[in-house]
Parts: sequence; C-alpha cells; structure tokens
Amino acid sequence: MAKNIKPRKEDYAQWYLDVIKAAQLADYSPVRGCMVIRPEGYAIWEAIQRDLDRRFKDTGHVNAYFPLLIPQSFLTKEAQHVEGFAMECAIVTHSKLEKDPTMPGRLRPASPLEEPLIIRPTSETMIGHMYAEWVQSYRDLPILINQWANVMRWEMRTRLFLRTSEFLWQEGHTAHETAQEAQEETLRMLDVYADFAQQLLAIPVIKGIKTDSEKFPGADTTYCIEALMQDGKALQAGTSHNLGQNFSKAFDIKYLGRDNTLQYAYTTSWGVSTRLIGAMIMAHSDDDGLVLPPRAAPIVCAIIPVYKGDQERSVVLGFIDQLVQKLVGTEEFSSAQQRTTGEIKQYFFNPITHQRIVVDTRDTRPGDKQYHWEQRGIPFRIEVGPRDVAAGAALLKRRIDRAKETVPLETFTPEWFKSKLDEVHQQMFEKALAFQIHNTRDASTYEQMKQILEKQGGFVRCWFLPDPDTEARIKAETKATVRCIPLNQPGGEGTCVYSGKPTQTQVLFAQAY
Amino acid sequence: MAKNIKPRKEDYAQWYLDVIKAAQLADYSPVRGCMVIRPEGYAIWEAIQRDLDRRFKDTGHVNAYFPLLIPQSFLTKEAQHVEGFAMECAIVTHSKLEKDPTMPGRLRPASPLEEPLIIRPTSETMIGHMYAEWVQSYRDLPILINQWANVMRWEMRTRLFLRTSEFLWQEGHTAHETAQEAQEETLRMLDVYADFAQQLLAIPVIKGIKTDSEKFPGADTTYCIEALMQDGKALQAGTSHNLGQNFSKAFDIKYLGRDNTLQYAYTTSWGVSTRLIGAMIMAHSDDDGLVLPPRAAPIVCAIIPVYKGDQERSVVLGFIDQLVQKLVGTEEFSSAQQRTTGEIKQYFFNPITHQRIVVDTRDTRPGDKQYHWEQRGIPFRIEVGPRDVAAGAALLKRRIDRAKETVPLETFTPEWFKSKLDEVHQQMFEKALAFQIHNTRDASTYEQMKQILEKQGGFVRCWFLPDPDTEARIKAETKATVRCIPLNQPGGEGTCVYSGKPTQTQVLFAQAY
Repeated sequence: MAKNIKPRKEDYAQWYLDVIKAAQLADYSPVRGCMVIRPEGYAIWEAIQRDLDRRFKDTGHVNAYFPLLIPQSFLTKEAQHVEGFAMECAIVTHSKLEKDPTMPGRLRPASPLEEPLIIRPTSETMIGHMYAEWVQSYRDLPILINQWANVMRWEMRTRLFLRTSEFLWQEGHTAHETAQEAQEETLRMLDVYADFAQQLLAIPVIKGIKTDSEKFPGADTTYCIEALMQDGKALQAGTSHNLGQNFSKAFDIKYLGRDNTLQYAYTTSWGVSTRLIGAMIMAHSDDDGLVLPPRAAPIVCAIIPVYKGDQERSVVLGFIDQLVQKLVGTEEFSSAQQRTTGEIKQYFFNPITHQRIVVDTRDTRPGDKQYHWEQRGIPFRIEVGPRDVAAGAALLKRRIDRAKETVPLETFTPEWFKSKLDEVHQQMFEKALAFQIHNTRDASTYEQMKQILEKQGGFVRCWFLPDPDTEARIKAETKATVRCIPLNQPGGEGTCVYSGKPTQTQVLFAQAY
Repeated sequence: MAKNIKPRKEDYAQWYLDVIKAAQLADYSPVRGCMVIRPEGYAIWEAIQRDLDRRFKDTGHVNAYFPLLIPQSFLTKEAQHVEGFAMECAIVTHSKLEKDPTMPGRLRPASPLEEPLIIRPTSETMIGHMYAEWVQSYRDLPILINQWANVMRWEMRTRLFLRTSEFLWQEGHTAHETAQEAQEETLRMLDVYADFAQQLLAIPVIKGIKTDSEKFPGADTTYCIEALMQDGKALQAGTSHNLGQNFSKAFDIKYLGRDNTLQYAYTTSWGVSTRLIGAMIMAHSDDDGLVLPPRAAPIVCAIIPVYKGDQERSVVLGFIDQLVQKLVGTEEFSSAQQRTTGEIKQYFFNPITHQRIVVDTRDTRPGDKQYHWEQRGIPFRIEVGPRDVAAGAALLKRRIDRAKETVPLETFTPEWFKSKLDEVHQQMFEKALAFQIHNTRDASTYEQMKQILEKQGGFVRCWFLPDPDTEARIKAETKATVRCIPLNQPGGEGTCVYSGKPTQTQVLFAQAY
C-alpha cells in the first residue's frame, strides 16, 4: 500500500488530496483559493479541450474571446443573474501601483477607476452586450460561439479542481431566431457533454433537468449531466442552459424578423470546467493513487528496464529500443531525441494528441520506478529484464486491475497497443457504470430516503413534487439536494416522497460536491 | 476599390482598423482598452497556438497553468521588474459586491482584501515562487514549462491586437542547472519563433539582441525577432529572455548541485502574443482588405455559384458538390451537413487544423459574395457558372495577386490544392522579404539616418555604441529606437553613427509599434 496516500475508507477527502499530490497534478498557490495546475494535470485538461473542441466544431460552433473584466453595472441588468453572481467576485478598483511614501519599499494602489470592474464569474452579460451590437436581422442568426477562458468566483472553502476561486472552463453562448432552435441547441450540447464524458473520461452520467432552486441564475431551464463519485456523492459535471429571452431582453439582442417585425433573440449557454479533472480522479482512482482513463492520459505507457551491470544494461536497453520502434515507428523513434531532457526518454505514441510513451532509464531501483508510474495512473507499464530479452518478450502490466501478461516482441504494433488502450477504457467505463447502477436506490418514503443517504449514500430515486421550500428543508435535514429530474422518466404518476401528494416527476436526490 | 476601407497611402492607421472591421476580426469592447476577438480573428490565434504548441512540445516543453492574480508584494521582489510592471496594472482590492444602500438598484465593492492582488502583467514572479517549491536537487532540473494565458497591462493608447490592456499570449518559463543551458534554451526558443513566423505567418524576421534600455525588466539579455510593416515601422514580434540568476535569487530557486552544494538555478522566459495577428495583418494586407497567409487562414477557399433561375441553380450546385467531394473526400462531404447553419456550407479541408472550404449559397449577388470573401482575405475563390459546368471546369481566383486560371474538374484533388496553398505561402513570404530588404538602408552619419527615417522609414542599419542616454536623445529627436543588435553581425569595427567613436556593434534603428 502506498504510504503517502491515505486509503479511501479512512479519509476520503485526504485520499483525494494525496492522489493529486502523488501524481503532481496540482498545487495550492500563494493566492487564497487559487490553484496551480501542474503539467501532468494540465495535460489532462488539454485532452479534454482537444476532444470537446472537435465536438463543438463538428456541430458548427466557432471560438472567440471576450474581455476578462466586466463593468459592474452589467451585472445588475438581469435580475436573477445579479443575485446569483454579484456576491462572490473579484473586483478591480485601481489601474496603477505607486510607491507608498509611508512604507519604504512597499507599493499601494493608485488611479482609482470611475466604475469598478468585475473579473468575469461567467460571460453572459458581456457577450449579451456584444451580440446586441452584432445582431440586426434574422440573417445574422444563429450565432454559435464558444469561449475557452478563466473565470473567478470567490470561494471560502476550496478543494483542488472541484472548487477553486479561479478555474478554467469553456462557455458556449448561442443566439437563435426561434425558441425551438434554442431548445434544440441546449439539448444538442447536453448530448455532446454526455457522450464526451463517456468516450474520453470513461465516466457514465445521467442527463436531467435542474429544479428551479438549483438552476442557473437567469435561465429558463438548466439541463445537467450528473456523475457519481466513489464515496457516493454526486458531482455536476456539465450544464446546458436554455436562457429563453431573459438575457436578450436585458441586453437588447433584437433582430428584424422574416415578417419584418423586431423580435428578441433566444439564447443558450453551456459549460464544463477543470472540475471535470476532479470528477475523473474521484471516479476511477484507487488506494494506490491515480488511475487515468487511457484517452485522457498524457503518458499511455511507461517502460522500465531491469538489469544489473553495464552488459545487461546495454542488452536490455537495446531490446527496449526495438520495442519502442515497433510501437511508435522508426521516424518518431529517431526524432524523439530532442524532446528528451534528463533520463526519462519521451516518444509520441500519438503525434496529434501528443500522448507519449516513456522509457525510464533513471539510475534508481526498478521498484521505485514501478511505484512512480503507478501513482501517476499510467494505463500500462512494461518491464524488460535480461530473461525477457532472452525469451524475446516483455511483461505488460495493466494499472486498472494489475493484470499481467507476457507479450512477444513481434506482437507490439501501434494498432495492437491502441486496442489494448481501448479495452482498458471500456473496462473502466463498465466498472464505473456498475458502481452507479449499484448505488442508485429507490425510496418510496422520506424515512427510507434518509436511511439510504445516511447508511449508503449514492443516488436516491423517488417520486417528488419539486418545490424550493421543501427542497431547502430536505437539504437542511439530509445535506442532499435534487441532483436532477432525469430526462429518462418512467411515465405515469407516483406519490411524492415528502408531501405524499401525487406527482408525475421522478427525481434523483444525493449529497453532492 | 473597397469603399469601406481607406487606402494605405491616405491614412495607414485608419486602413488598419478598416481592414479589421471589414474582415470582422475584432471589436472594441465596453471596457476601455480591452478588445473582443471575433471568431474570424480568434481562428487565426488558434492556428498560431496549434503551430507553436507543436513546436514547444517537439522541443521537450509541457504546458501548465498558474494563477491570474499575483500578490502585490511579489512584484517588489525583483528590483528592475517592479519598475517595469508595477505602474500599469489592474488591481483587485475587494472580493464581493453588495447592494448600495445609498443608491437603490446599484452595487458597490465590499469585503476589502488584506493585501491587494494584481492581475498578472506577466508571470515570472508567481512562477518563480512555485519553482522555488518544486526544485530541490539538480535532478529536478531542467523545468521546461509553457503557459497559454491572458495578461493585463493598463494602456492609455490602445490599438486592436497591437496594444490592448488585456491580451492573450504564451509565456515559457524554464529553469536550468547551468548558465550555458539557459543560454542555449533562450536561443533555441528565439529560433523556434523565427521559423514559426516564416512558416506559418509568412513574415520574415530579423533575430537580434535588445540594448539595455529596451530589454525586459529583470533580464540579463533580451533576444527578439523584429518584423517590418508596410508603413516602414518595425514591430517586435516575439522575445526570449535569459534571466540569469536574477529571478532565482529574488524567489530563492535553489538546488543541491552535483557537487553537493546549494546553487541558484538559471532561468529563462519567452513569449509571443495576439499582437502577432496585428503584425500579420500589416505585413500582408492591401487596399482591398485582409490578405491571409494560407496556413493561418481559417477558410482556405470560398466557392461561389453563379446562375439564373432554378434550373441553372441545380446544375451549378450539382457540379460544385462534385468539386467539393474531390477536394475534401466523400466522407467529409457527407458528414459536413451538421456543421452548416444558414446558407454558407462548411467543409473541413483539413480535419486536424479545422481549416475549411465554404460554398456560399446565399441569395445575394455573386459580386457581393466576391467582395465579401475578398475583404476577409480568403486565399482562393472559385467561381462556377453554367458555362463552366458545360466545359467541365471552374475559375480559380487567387487573392494575393488576383491571378485567375480555369481548372478542369479532374484536377481538383486535396494534394493539388495543398500545393496551390503552399505556392501562395511562398509568394507572400518572398514579397514581404523583398520589401524588408528594399527598406533596410545603411547610414554612416546621424544626418543620413534622420533623413532616411523622415523620408523613407524602414530599418536604418548603422554602426552604433549602445548607450541609454544617447538612445533616449535619438528617440526624442527621431521617434526611432534601436530595434535590435542583429545576431548576424558583419564583424570588424566601424564608427558610431552618433558619437563618432569606434564600435564593433551594428544595429537596426526604426520607428516602431
């Protein structure tokens, strides 16, 4: 067992931080609540970006960039929006530092701004303002724009990736001619998120609608994907909002319609953030550290030579050279030299995603190397010693379940290894799906629901009559909230778990991150 | 001549803004000095990012992300750095907005921070702080990290892309064991920038060293690439700094060396920004609008059908379908449907770079469409009318020089079109290089230099003895600065153009953006 990682059963919150630290994914920074995303963590974000960006472009979207700072007055234009966001933001009030005459060597803010500026907590207001300038006629619609950006929401209790004051995200903002087109777009992007979560991160999610008390401030309807973590808590992994005409009325996004009358556009917004990295860690990792889903792994295989003395060393490394060439091709093998600094050799297995295979030739014990790559969640390790060379084979170890197999040298090809990675992806997804199904329990009374939440956690599925006051009471008593009204409803009518009244709505309750 | 674009000779500054507006690359935002990068402009930034990111990874670098906000006290740790950056930054002083009891419906800042935070103007200080935590031994070196980020420097006079308060950039930050390794890294990245500018943006650049009065605050040596714009002004397109031990001493980046003694690391930093888009516009565009270098163009070809009546329409569009399939393949042709919104059909010519071919089926006059795509700088337009269909050919028009050729349908293949794009790239680079060479003039006296600067502009090449006071006087008199001491020196000795003293240094003077 890894000494630097607390087991999940003993202290799940500490386990999560230990996994991140051991894999060097992120660090707290000297600025309260803000994190540093280290290279191994940022590479996961790059995999997320690459995959989502392709999906956005395949569905007709383009990227753009809007200012970081938003005039304070913009926030007050949409009534619900200001309540939701104004209270937790970073405010720029000065545009200069000057030497402090009272404290030598110190600086102080100078040149106060006429109107304070807010670091964007989200960009509906700024983008609404610009769309109002860009849209004149129905011919200017739809606008299908996405932005990759940093945002800030001042948080008191932070947790790496899951809740930080600054985080990275994408925010899609679209404007349409009709309510129906806006609704189709909202659902299209929800589907994009759900498929992405499954295909890249191997995380099964439930698609649903938020109740009024949980929806985005300013939205008509908020759709979400919800995932279940290993401690039985739910995590909202992405949201897609149908904003109706709320923002177009607040920011005057009007167009001359086909019937020659002025109309307000219908808008949507949708986003996912670096919080997905937290979801990925908590969905798959184990007491030995990180477990990476192969398609999001910056390094897909670590090769570890095992030898004693110079002669064995040269035989083993020579064999590894052959093996690597079979996996990455001779061209990549020979051009990889310039990328290698230090004693960990780097080869691109996939030149488009930059996913790498490494050969760890450091002068440390093979056991330490195993441990090093295991904690970093690398999907496969390959061990090669003199006996393997003699047998013309290598030992392949799988991170997810520690399965081992001896693989003859001639078997190593890019296609073969890609299929091994796909197998692991499928295995991880099925394991997470089985966990989700196993931890979704039905309750027909509030007592039953409370017992499940207390003893087992997970999702509680029940008939419910959504109502903000009732939801607040349930949250106060159980810490659980309605995670969503799943799109997949059984139909018919049931009895509300809390009020006993008839309802046609089934919901999922859970405690959540 | 385009009515919405002022000719360069009449008003170069207005021409620049008109080109940006006509091509919809960017807009001013409601926040003073901050711009909105519109989709057609942002796609150029994405091409820049993709190309550079590959080059960074090919030279062993990885990406990471550091906080947007920097504690005020960090800026004062490096003496030169604070002088350079503290005076023009955005300062966060509060973490909340509250309702203003004196002004109903208005908000005001609340919850003042103990220590003000600065929106990063550059990240040497924050990254220096983190490297000090990460580096213990020589085994932890080198660190080769790049960051893609937004930064802010409060600017009074702004110009879209060239100088804005917020801009996007990349900043590389590396730490090394030896001075030699840091110097090699600094020059390696300078070469990466120079090759990138030539290969992606078709801009020839001159590699050189900044004089002390122009170098980065806190650097030992600043290297740069300088480009020449069509109005004869120079533009600094990228910088690479050897920071020596200045920041490692200020932030205590120490390591236990191979000799078991504690040593300060040697660091570098290097960056390019969205200003490159301004350079690209000014290097290539003409009085008809934007001219895009093909490898940075989001759309590489616009196809325009010309017909009268429904029957001609169906014949012409049928022929265009055949032509597009030959250019993008049948698979892409049939899967492109979902990307098309409105009447401009979108096909990926290159699925990795997302560069597109469009078919403009809008119900407007062909002349208006020509004009539309010409102003947007699309490298090629193809026109197809009933006569072309009858002849089994199409008319290919080249943006750069308006050359036309009739191309038989069977000639259209991806490889053929790629070679046409490469030809245009080469043509644009050679044109810009000829301009640069033609506008680099030698001066042996200060009078001569002043005359060249006044009458012709461009680079003035001369022997010079770098000296901050002299440079300040020359700048006050001529608005020109030493752009760089070119790496490519003639050798030997000459007479300083200003002081008449002997010097071994040749420099380039120019007025600059």
